[in-house]
Amino acid sequence: MTAPRLAENALAATLRAIGTEARAASDALAHATGEAKTRALHVAAEAVRASSAAVLAANARDLDEAGRTNLSPPLIDRLMLDAKRVEAIATGLDAVAAFPDPVGTVLATWTRPNGLEISRVRTPLGVIGIIYESRPNVTADAGGLCLRSGNAAILRGGSESFHSSNALVACLHEGLRAAGLPEHAIQMVPTRDREAVGLMLGMSDLIDVIVPRGGRSLIERVQRESRIPVIAHLEGICHVYVDRAADLAKAQAIVLNAKMRRVSVCGAAETLLMDRAVAAEALPPILRALHAAGCEIRGDSATRSLDPAATPASEQDWRTEYLDAILSVRVVDGVEGAIEHINTFGSHHTDAIVTEDQATADHFLDRVDSAIVLVNASTQFADGAEFGMGAEIGISTSKLHARGPVGAEQLTSFKYLVRGNGQVRP
Amino acid sequence: MTAPRLAENALAATLRAIGTEARAASDALAHATGEAKTRALHVAAEAVRASSAAVLAANARDLDEAGRTNLSPPLIDRLMLDAKRVEAIATGLDAVAAFPDPVGTVLATWTRPNGLEISRVRTPLGVIGIIYESRPNVTADAGGLCLRSGNAAILRGGSESFHSSNALVACLHEGLRAAGLPEHAIQMVPTRDREAVGLMLGMSDLIDVIVPRGGRSLIERVQRESRIPVIAHLEGICHVYVDRAADLAKAQAIVLNAKMRRVSVCGAAETLLMDRAVAAEALPPILRALHAAGCEIRGDSATRSLDPAATPASEQDWRTEYLDAILSVRVVDGVEGAIEHINTFGSHHTDAIVTEDQATADHFLDRVDSAIVLVNASTQFADGAEFGMGAEIGISTSKLHARGPVGAEQLTSFKYLVRGNGQVRP
Repeated sequence: MTAPRLAENALAATLRAIGTEARAASDALAHATGEAKTRALHVAAEAVRASSAAVLAANARDLDEAGRTNLSPPLIDRLMLDAKRVEAIATGLDAVAAFPDPVGTVLATWTRPNGLEISRVRTPLGVIGIIYESRPNVTADAGGLCLRSGNAAILRGGSESFHSSNALVACLHEGLRAAGLPEHAIQMVPTRDREAVGLMLGMSDLIDVIVPRGGRSLIERVQRESRIPVIAHLEGICHVYVDRAADLAKAQAIVLNAKMRRVSVCGAAETLLMDRAVAAEALPPILRALHAAGCEIRGDSATRSLDPAATPASEQDWRTEYLDAILSVRVVDGVEGAIEHINTFGSHHTDAIVTEDQATADHFLDRVDSAIVLVNASTQFADGAEFGMGAEIGISTSKLHARGPVGAEQLTSFKYLVRGNGQVRP
Repeated sequence: MTAPRLAENALAATLRAIGTEARAASDALAHATGEAKTRALHVAAEAVRASSAAVLAANARDLDEAGRTNLSPPLIDRLMLDAKRVEAIATGLDAVAAFPDPVGTVLATWTRPNGLEISRVRTPLGVIGIIYESRPNVTADAGGLCLRSGNAAILRGGSESFHSSNALVACLHEGLRAAGLPEHAIQMVPTRDREAVGLMLGMSDLIDVIVPRGGRSLIERVQRESRIPVIAHLEGICHVYVDRAADLAKAQAIVLNAKMRRVSVCGAAETLLMDRAVAAEALPPILRALHAAGCEIRGDSATRSLDPAATPASEQDWRTEYLDAILSVRVVDGVEGAIEHINTFGSHHTDAIVTEDQATADHFLDRVDSAIVLVNASTQFADGAEFGMGAEIGISTSKLHARGPVGAEQLTSFKYLVRGNGQVRP
């Protein structure tokens, strides 16, 4: 029993050393100029381009090891890099560099009757721990966003992408060095040991926020075990509701895009809600287009009466994030029925209405209790870059702190600066 | 063993019923007009005034029971109401009523190149659980702030203030009824059973946020056990740093006020840091004034060499929130020494510098990592009402979501509304 205990102590010591270095680096980063951080990001992007061969070689090693442990094809796809994906990682870092530095922004300023001048100013959060799964690009996105927002990052990527992530972190370090910033501002946990996650979740004195990015079981584990505040992104059970006042051409294009553009993203639609008043006319052509695109339909009885190819949907279907070419379909009684279904079965992530009726649209926007509510647009716009945030570290389904896309601004806190001339409180 | 388990199940069922009613009420409240909420608050304030005799009778019953269980005098003082304190509770509700309704405020709006119009709009959080100790006024402050911000409240007050709190909740209900709002928007946990707290902390499907307000052990228990996000207020180890460029008259007035105005509030100063460059001249008169006001001084050796009445301060003193007429005093090497001391030993709550040097002040404001940083003003201004927020439910020392005074605005979330005309994502 002695050896494992020693190993665990050694791992704990390693992680605490990383945390201590991160804390020190976060102090330097909090006061770095915007120009230095921008330069670090651009140099890192160039380093990714220049190191493309090395990154791909590291990725080949990951894929080789993954093949040996029999990962599923979707997991292999998430893990795999090619020249195009490496360039996308570099472009992402440039986009984060172009995003205005949030630190130091004055959010509000006011003067009290006693003459105190109060301002609220953005500050970094400090040290952010990011726990994620197999996508190597998260390494660059997360490291870049933390740098932009003046935070130190401790990255704990999936063991499958270990070599790829290390190669990308080397590029981020090149950027930090070029800008005279401490390399410890972005650190990778240097082990595949699963114990590392639990140890990180307990380091509340050295890590200020945990951002988990991955499947439901990872998020739930982090929420359960963490002694540190969590910015969590639960699943996206996204809906499109086609209203009686919908433009049917728009409706078909939006439903098809929301479901099929990419089925594996959190903004992909999982349920189509169809207004009973127009279902007989509007639903069949939409379902035909979905079938033609290779989508399986699971419908309620009203849907199945209009589409013999549909299989029955159970209540479990309304609660399922398929992340696959499957769509559940329900006929509802107008916008009220849609709102009730979404607020009951949805995950408060992203939901859309298709309608030309302004009052109906406004009512849907007001009543649907989700981070993002759209009118006449695809749910697949649920994305930090599409919102103009440069990039995102995820989409928060929490209502505290960050809700919706989490970009550089959402990785900041604020403080109050109060300027007086000798005021004391009566 | 059967009976206690049954009782526990009954308590759990009661709490879940309260949570379910709160969830339903929160839906109604989220869409109530600002006028209705304002009216409910004003009627509640009037009801407190009209029911003053009943509130005081309920408080007398609490005090009578408290006497029998031998509460400490400070606890009795926190629990005790008189006509003036009842009027202050009513005035507080009127102040919250006067605060602008935060719900529906458009925080930002922008248009994307593809024509999508995005806006970020304030929403309520949902159901807020407030767990507090003996002060009956928290019942009205917390209930009022939740109402102003469109949230349903579940109040779990200290068992000592049970009758007083119930009498105040009756007044809040009168306001809700008069405004046509559901009474279940503000509910008291109807038992003194301590198990109720643990049960509330597990109701993550029915409560969106927990706000603990009380001593360190309560806050730590809540942070440890809660499965629900917490807006926590840890202790206030607040500092005043007197710089070499201080106006010494201002310094003395600020230190005296920061320490002695009220020693039991979280914004009370606990440590005085004195610039070595002016210590010999500036420190003795300040310490004489403090002694004269009845304050005990615990100093480092430099302080003790200037004040023979001072007792030695240990490192533990730098980490202690006395909430009493005690001040720890340390001589430091200028503003850098002060910043290092504060960031090392403080609680990131509220800290002040006294200086006439603008550059030194700006450096202190930038480098001190606290929710509130003041120049030439007393730390006792750390208060939501003093910040112009109408009232506060506490001062958050967290960096996520709410930092500093937590008023109605801090009890809100937001959502993104996206208006398109048929956009799909390429």
